[in-house]
Amino acid sequence: MARWAYVNGRYVPHTLAAVHVEDRGYQFADGVYEVVTLLDGRFADLDGHMARLDRSLKELRIAWPVAPRVLDFVVRELVRRNGVRNGSVYLQVTRGVAPRDFRFPDDTPSSLVVTTRRVQQWAKPGQLSDGVAVITIPDIRWARRDIKTVALLPQALGKQQAAEAGAYEAWMVDPDGTVTEGTSANAWIVTPAGVLVTREASPRILNGVTRLSLLRLARERGVPVEERPFTVAEALDAREAFLSSAGTFAMPVTRIDGRAVGDGKPGALTMALRQAYIDHVLGTPA
Amino acid sequence: MARWAYVNGRYVPHTLAAVHVEDRGYQFADGVYEVVTLLDGRFADLDGHMARLDRSLKELRIAWPVAPRVLDFVVRELVRRNGVRNGSVYLQVTRGVAPRDFRFPDDTPSSLVVTTRRVQQWAKPGQLSDGVAVITIPDIRWARRDIKTVALLPQALGKQQAAEAGAYEAWMVDPDGTVTEGTSANAWIVTPAGVLVTREASPRILNGVTRLSLLRLARERGVPVEERPFTVAEALDAREAFLSSAGTFAMPVTRIDGRAVGDGKPGALTMALRQAYIDHVLGTPA
Repeated sequence: MARWAYVNGRYVPHTLAAVHVEDRGYQFADGVYEVVTLLDGRFADLDGHMARLDRSLKELRIAWPVAPRVLDFVVRELVRRNGVRNGSVYLQVTRGVAPRDFRFPDDTPSSLVVTTRRVQQWAKPGQLSDGVAVITIPDIRWARRDIKTVALLPQALGKQQAAEAGAYEAWMVDPDGTVTEGTSANAWIVTPAGVLVTREASPRILNGVTRLSLLRLARERGVPVEERPFTVAEALDAREAFLSSAGTFAMPVTRIDGRAVGDGKPGALTMALRQAYIDHVLGTPA
Repeated sequence: MARWAYVNGRYVPHTLAAVHVEDRGYQFADGVYEVVTLLDGRFADLDGHMARLDRSLKELRIAWPVAPRVLDFVVRELVRRNGVRNGSVYLQVTRGVAPRDFRFPDDTPSSLVVTTRRVQQWAKPGQLSDGVAVITIPDIRWARRDIKTVALLPQALGKQQAAEAGAYEAWMVDPDGTVTEGTSANAWIVTPAGVLVTREASPRILNGVTRLSLLRLARERGVPVEERPFTVAEALDAREAFLSSAGTFAMPVTRIDGRAVGDGKPGALTMALRQAYIDHVLGTPA
């Protein structure tokens, strides 16, 4: 079956989906994006992703490329055309095409690209039974990590460094020794006392949509929660650790820089929250 | 006359110059660029720009998209086709097109885009006679400013902020109070004692190709030079201030945050270095 993409008002074959070389996303990383998971035909937290997109656009003063309800339609239509029941939708909005100039262009419509991808399995063999490994690296990003921009080069470098170290992800560490987050996932621990800890939302991290749902699900279940920074040492002494993102839900972390977290096995609270998140998504109207 | 661009092996009309939406330059800012000025048919420091491109690519482990001598040919051919004698060449190299994944793709050719632009006047009326104004803003960029990447969003935001404040440029200031550089130009001062000062090359700034030529030209003329950081206060107390880039050469700065630098007029050393730079370029074989 042909795979379609949506680019600035048109549905086009994915292989032909292109943007002008003077799109500011290409020349200035002047754009934002969202990735939305589809589980069994249900969108995972679509409203949350749309709300965050709205925030990102406002922070950068980029206009919505189409009305929010039109974008909602486009996303659903592309998923329908591509017959995706399990996978993800990627959507990117940039400040549009204009002769290259650092300053914002006048009267230039913003650009919109939407693509989809099918996912066969959400975790590779072993990732859930054994957990994944992370390394820690300095957080060298800019000061506005709360905006979900496509200026992802430091994250790409960090993820590559993790892969070359045989790890799944890199947790980034601020100069004060606290973990900010992973290159594409928020970071969590469960203390020896059973408290769920993840860094508070601030310009230091991206406030994950999955993060917010997991916090709500944990609180609903009476889990004690603290939103605060934690150090690598505290993570190593933790009972459990995990990471969260649209594509990983909650994924157990059992090694940090080659050392075991807790007993070295995926934690019970981690796996319960993962299941709660999946149930939450599957309970969404299709 | 038609305007041509070069995109991945083909000369195409500029209006049709496009890259795939999964080019990593678009989705991850995973690419680098150079801008080379053409003055009266002479390339300004082309060798310097090619050397810096090589360095940027090596730092990010992106392969040359074509051999350096092929790129040199493409640049000259595009300039010829577009009949540019005064203007600039923009060239961008990214890690190529691959299904979206933070990690580097395997065996993916890097992407190359080259465009040209004509420039009618290198300075607007008043900019050389009166100098330009800069504002100062916090430097919120990442830690590897020495690599000339397309992750330029903070610079675009800074330049826009300057424009809205009625200024030409924003000088970015590190937490320790020292000026790093402008959003698209290096920053310079001349002390009351006549010493030319600009920040030393380090990961805190982009080592401008024009900066390097100006340093050499100043030293050749016996001007005392110090490569070190300076504060906004020192710049305000300076005899002269200016900025440098491929497109501005050396441009006098006469106001910083609304306050006059020196006597508020373009400095003599600034204008002498500007002329020396232009003479240097015009002395290059065509």
